[in-house]
Amino acid sequence: MNDLCITNACVVTADAQGRVIRDGALAVKAGRIGWIGDSADAPTARRQIDAKGMILMPGLINAHCHAGDSLFRGLVEDLPLEAWLQKVWQAEAAILTPETARLGSTLGFAEMLLAGVTTVMDMFWYPGPVVAAARAVGLRVATGGIFIDGPGVDGLTGPARLRQAEAFFEEYASAEDVFPGVLPHGTYTCGPETLMAAKALTDRYGGFFSTHAAETQAEQATVNARYGRSIIRHMDALGLLDSRTVLAHAVHLDDAEIAILAWRGVTVAHCPASNLKLGSGVARVPDLLAAGVTVALGSDGAISGNDLDPWLALRLAATLHRGTSSRADAVGKAQALHMATLAGAKALAAEDRIGSLEVGKFADMILIDVTRPHAVPLFDPVTHLAYSTAKSDVRHVFLGGAQVVRDGALTRLDIFATLAEVRALMPRIAAAIA
Amino acid sequence: MNDLCITNACVVTADAQGRVIRDGALAVKAGRIGWIGDSADAPTARRQIDAKGMILMPGLINAHCHAGDSLFRGLVEDLPLEAWLQKVWQAEAAILTPETARLGSTLGFAEMLLAGVTTVMDMFWYPGPVVAAARAVGLRVATGGIFIDGPGVDGLTGPARLRQAEAFFEEYASAEDVFPGVLPHGTYTCGPETLMAAKALTDRYGGFFSTHAAETQAEQATVNARYGRSIIRHMDALGLLDSRTVLAHAVHLDDAEIAILAWRGVTVAHCPASNLKLGSGVARVPDLLAAGVTVALGSDGAISGNDLDPWLALRLAATLHRGTSSRADAVGKAQALHMATLAGAKALAAEDRIGSLEVGKFADMILIDVTRPHAVPLFDPVTHLAYSTAKSDVRHVFLGGAQVVRDGALTRLDIFATLAEVRALMPRIAAAIA
Ligand SMILES: [Zn+2]
Ligand SMILES: [Zn+2]
Repeated sequence: MNDLCITNACVVTADAQGRVIRDGALAVKAGRIGWIGDSADAPTARRQIDAKGMILMPGLINAHCHAGDSLFRGLVEDLPLEAWLQKVWQAEAAILTPETARLGSTLGFAEMLLAGVTTVMDMFWYPGPVVAAARAVGLRVATGGIFIDGPGVDGLTGPARLRQAEAFFEEYASAEDVFPGVLPHGTYTCGPETLMAAKALTDRYGGFFSTHAAETQAEQATVNARYGRSIIRHMDALGLLDSRTVLAHAVHLDDAEIAILAWRGVTVAHCPASNLKLGSGVARVPDLLAAGVTVALGSDGAISGNDLDPWLALRLAATLHRGTSSRADAVGKAQALHMATLAGAKALAAEDRIGSLEVGKFADMILIDVTRPHAVPLFDPVTHLAYSTAKSDVRHVFLGGAQVVRDGALTRLDIFATLAEVRALMPRIAAAIA
Repeated sequence: MNDLCITNACVVTADAQGRVIRDGALAVKAGRIGWIGDSADAPTARRQIDAKGMILMPGLINAHCHAGDSLFRGLVEDLPLEAWLQKVWQAEAAILTPETARLGSTLGFAEMLLAGVTTVMDMFWYPGPVVAAARAVGLRVATGGIFIDGPGVDGLTGPARLRQAEAFFEEYASAEDVFPGVLPHGTYTCGPETLMAAKALTDRYGGFFSTHAAETQAEQATVNARYGRSIIRHMDALGLLDSRTVLAHAVHLDDAEIAILAWRGVTVAHCPASNLKLGSGVARVPDLLAAGVTVALGSDGAISGNDLDPWLALRLAATLHRGTSSRADAVGKAQALHMATLAGAKALAAEDRIGSLEVGKFADMILIDVTRPHAVPLFDPVTHLAYSTAKSDVRHVFLGGAQVVRDGALTRLDIFATLAEVRALMPRIAAAIA
């Protein structure tokens, strides 16, 4: 007997073939997708959901985020990245503890889950509390030890960071809801030894290696001045680039750097909303795609967004590059949808478990209301997903078949208590940068 | 006695001084704003609304739209503007009548009003049905006679168009909810005589003159080849540019053209979502602002969007130009808010009536819920409006003090009936371009 069967949905599988079933159904058994087909052939199940007027699709994957920074949303504005980062770090240093990191992460994860994100790659201090927050809200998280040279907000020394990262790999080695990895901050904030030590852990334990790379021109100039080579060449020389590597931003690249990323099988986490807001630039996404680089989508933190809306990222991925290249076909709608789903799964080497609706994968899925004015008429569901779906259209969300959002509300968490806690912290946050 | 008093709101007046009242109140009498101040001093009224947890601000102004084209949302995709327009016109010609124009306009206006737009400049065939749709939904509309050389969708001849435009001015001369004007399609679709005849009407009756201008490079090339001068120089030579002129898009301009627009007091309706989607380019908004040109915001039609979300336009106006100029302060948040409000009022020479919350103006206003995760913490309301407000945060909308949206639902229109009518038309629409 199936646990759940959803019928009468427009099923957008987001699989490699782009299969869409107009009047489709999907059955869940033991947390995994057991069956997909026409509604007319739907099997029985303990629970039935009639999804008439809804699109059923896989949960979205956010490939680059700092959910905990939601505490500082809107606090520091209108500065270029480097000056802005100094202020942000000042606020983080004054406010962050394991408890507040968990609070901020809870806020960020709640926002994302409500918008249909079911897996997040999150770079933040205190990875343990980050996992606790993700579990409390109800989504999967890819995280792990963070690396930065010099004293971090968490006060750890270099050797302690390595131990923390190792312990994280060991603790979550067999967890289904945690993808462990290492997250050094960047090539301008971590020296070669730090980066190589972090990389050695992924080679030993498996998992991903994710860092910021080539976000701004200033960052490229810094690394060039320090090491005599561009960021991607520097990383490649250090042996940091392979199919487990996920580079956030990758805005400022030359052709040869794009070729290196393609050759090494690196994934780029494209963060268009952040890149626009901070004035970082516009990533060469059509060129990356043409070269065969896997491009996933990220929101970055709410301090550079100012929200964590995956639909904005998807829409910008689909349209921004048309505007800047004056080519109406620079990025296709199916390519953009792929960035928000399967490409994120590939970044985590988890295409066998997440990123599309296929039999055997986790039943991570969302139901999208298409009965609102901006969804009518609806000639093609992928067009609607790429260009006119809003986060508020996400009505129900399932993680491993368990309902974590029902009618636009979290089922596991009292969000109002979280919001009240965040508001109570606001005077201290504001004072931190005064 | 006041008709309505809203208390305990964070009042963002969007006036020229950027006045914000943290615990503010506003009273309405006979459709106009009668009083604004601190909640503690709020006057009595027949109806009281406690707006705790909400921002009160003026309704947004959409300075360029084709609401009726919502019928064709998502129908034609991934073509550059010129090829795309041929397909769109094919669909329009097969489908549009006064009845379907009204239906499509109703759909588009409903979407916009739900998102907080209270005034729209709308260019569409059949201006009478457009007004009827706006009145049925409950927003103000700036529209009038449309001009295009050769046979249009409506089958009118040149002289009949002039008569229609004149009749429109006369019919709506004293209407408070209609701003009459003329709307020639563009310099590549209307010859000099048509454009000058339309302009002569605005000189005679008052009202605005709005047209598409410099949307694409191909359009500039066409006009250059035909008239030996660029679009703006061509329009200026024809005497079409003054403070009543509103140019949609204005993407491809040289420095001298920007200077002409500034000198003539022209308003640009910036449509970033459309420009990105169609691959038209990125307007030089920072340069336009620096030159002193008034820049308002438009959604363009849902066929080039694919929705009519004013918050996306606002957010893109605030962030897109940072990304493309690599300057984190290229456009300020207050400037972006001004584009969505007072600048639109200026385009209609209606700054005495709409565009901000000030005593004596129409009580066109919206209440925005700021109790959702993406709005917390909220350090500065203008930051939130520019970077993280979503259309679904708009909870209540008032037009001239009358409530036209209550808890996210239209009060005047059965939207489900409209959506059902649109869906019934879908097979014919799809067949029209087959
Ligand atoms: Zn980041
Ligand atoms: Zn237009």
